[in-house]
Amino acid sequence: MNRSAVVLLSGGLDSATALAIARSQGFETCAISYDYGQRHRVELSLAAQQCSIQGVAKHITVDVDMRKIGGSALTADIEVPKDRDEAAMSHDIPITYVPARNTVFLSYALAWAEVLGANDIFIGVNALDYSGYPDCRPEYISAFQTMARLATKVGVEGAELTIHTPLIDLTKAQIISAGLDLGVQYEFTSSCYDPSPEGRPCRHCDSCLLREKGFASLGMTDPLVARFDG
Amino acid sequence: MNRSAVVLLSGGLDSATALAIARSQGFETCAISYDYGQRHRVELSLAAQQCSIQGVAKHITVDVDMRKIGGSALTADIEVPKDRDEAAMSHDIPITYVPARNTVFLSYALAWAEVLGANDIFIGVNALDYSGYPDCRPEYISAFQTMARLATKVGVEGAELTIHTPLIDLTKAQIISAGLDLGVQYEFTSSCYDPSPEGRPCRHCDSCLLREKGFASLGMTDPLVARFDG
Repeated sequence: MNRSAVVLLSGGLDSATALAIARSQGFETCAISYDYGQRHRVELSLAAQQCSIQGVAKHITVDVDMRKIGGSALTADIEVPKDRDEAAMSHDIPITYVPARNTVFLSYALAWAEVLGANDIFIGVNALDYSGYPDCRPEYISAFQTMARLATKVGVEGAELTIHTPLIDLTKAQIISAGLDLGVQYEFTSSCYDPSPEGRPCRHCDSCLLREKGFASLGMTDPLVARFDG
Repeated sequence: MNRSAVVLLSGGLDSATALAIARSQGFETCAISYDYGQRHRVELSLAAQQCSIQGVAKHITVDVDMRKIGGSALTADIEVPKDRDEAAMSHDIPITYVPARNTVFLSYALAWAEVLGANDIFIGVNALDYSGYPDCRPEYISAFQTMARLATKVGVEGAELTIHTPLIDLTKAQIISAGLDLGVQYEFTSSCYDPSPEGRPCRHCDSCLLREKGFASLGMTDPLVARFDG
């Protein structure tokens, strides 16, 4: 049995936690990161740092050419929304949505899994906090897995490729709590959509607000904020 | 009703035919090509030429970073097989198979379709001549379509995204015949896995052998061969 798993690693809080969970389940982890022209490129250096801290076996960063496709505040010259209330966050598909992003990312992960002979892929999607993203829903992940089993040599040969989504039903506080139990160093993760070049979070975008609320509900200060302010 | 369609266009015989079929069905065509470090990069200039000949509304070429993932004779330093018999072609998954290639390509097409507001994607996959590729099978395409409808804003809003595979059940001769009826200029397409820098086909790889047999069964010489030899 091949116990390698491919883990999608953005350098954010969720994917750093998904990585720790994959390791805790006994997988040798191979991390894949994506350079897609995101404003928040500081996360890529934090992804590399997480690989080093967490003892990842292999790490690749793939260039994903989303700029020619356009259509998102995360890659195009559209303003990142700030200080939105939770009703707006949970009911709209946000302008920070990158078209088909998880589909593109999972496709590369699938290709690499096939080359590595890995039957397991971990992705830190979360359906509760980000209900606005269509490609974070359980039914989407399930459909991707069905497609993936048919797409590859692995599928032809009958192996059972599995897309693991250990965070899908967790609140942000539960994710943080699980990660802390596994020793995740959240001061070396970045969630902000619009950070300073050094990685200081803006503390006003949707992602910062959700993260800060998660730590607050555990009675904690975000160690990333503390790293910059302390 | 939006009548734009995204067409995957490699510059090969099949995709040039799929493009002509999309046009014949009344779609405004938006063509997407992929630069994935393929040996046969001459096909990209022929893709651009097909866009000009066929009056494509928009054309983008996306950089797809497959080299870091590796695993194929089409992108890595592995020899392209030559002069294989048809039994070998149809029973093995060939070494020219690029891991999850159609999944990666269709994912980008899906992203672009979402930005364009297009509900239709055309891909020139063919299940008969290339039965060795898992991601050319009808059940794979159907699973991708199911996933795609869940992946995107379009899916959330209830529109019916369709992946069209007009060539899927055709023999190579039938594809050529359909294309000739629609005026496709096959002298400006390239199918060879290992062409000269100018685009002269090797006439020995699987793809050349299948193409040549297709023209021969119609009693024709491949106009691409004639362009170089005539």
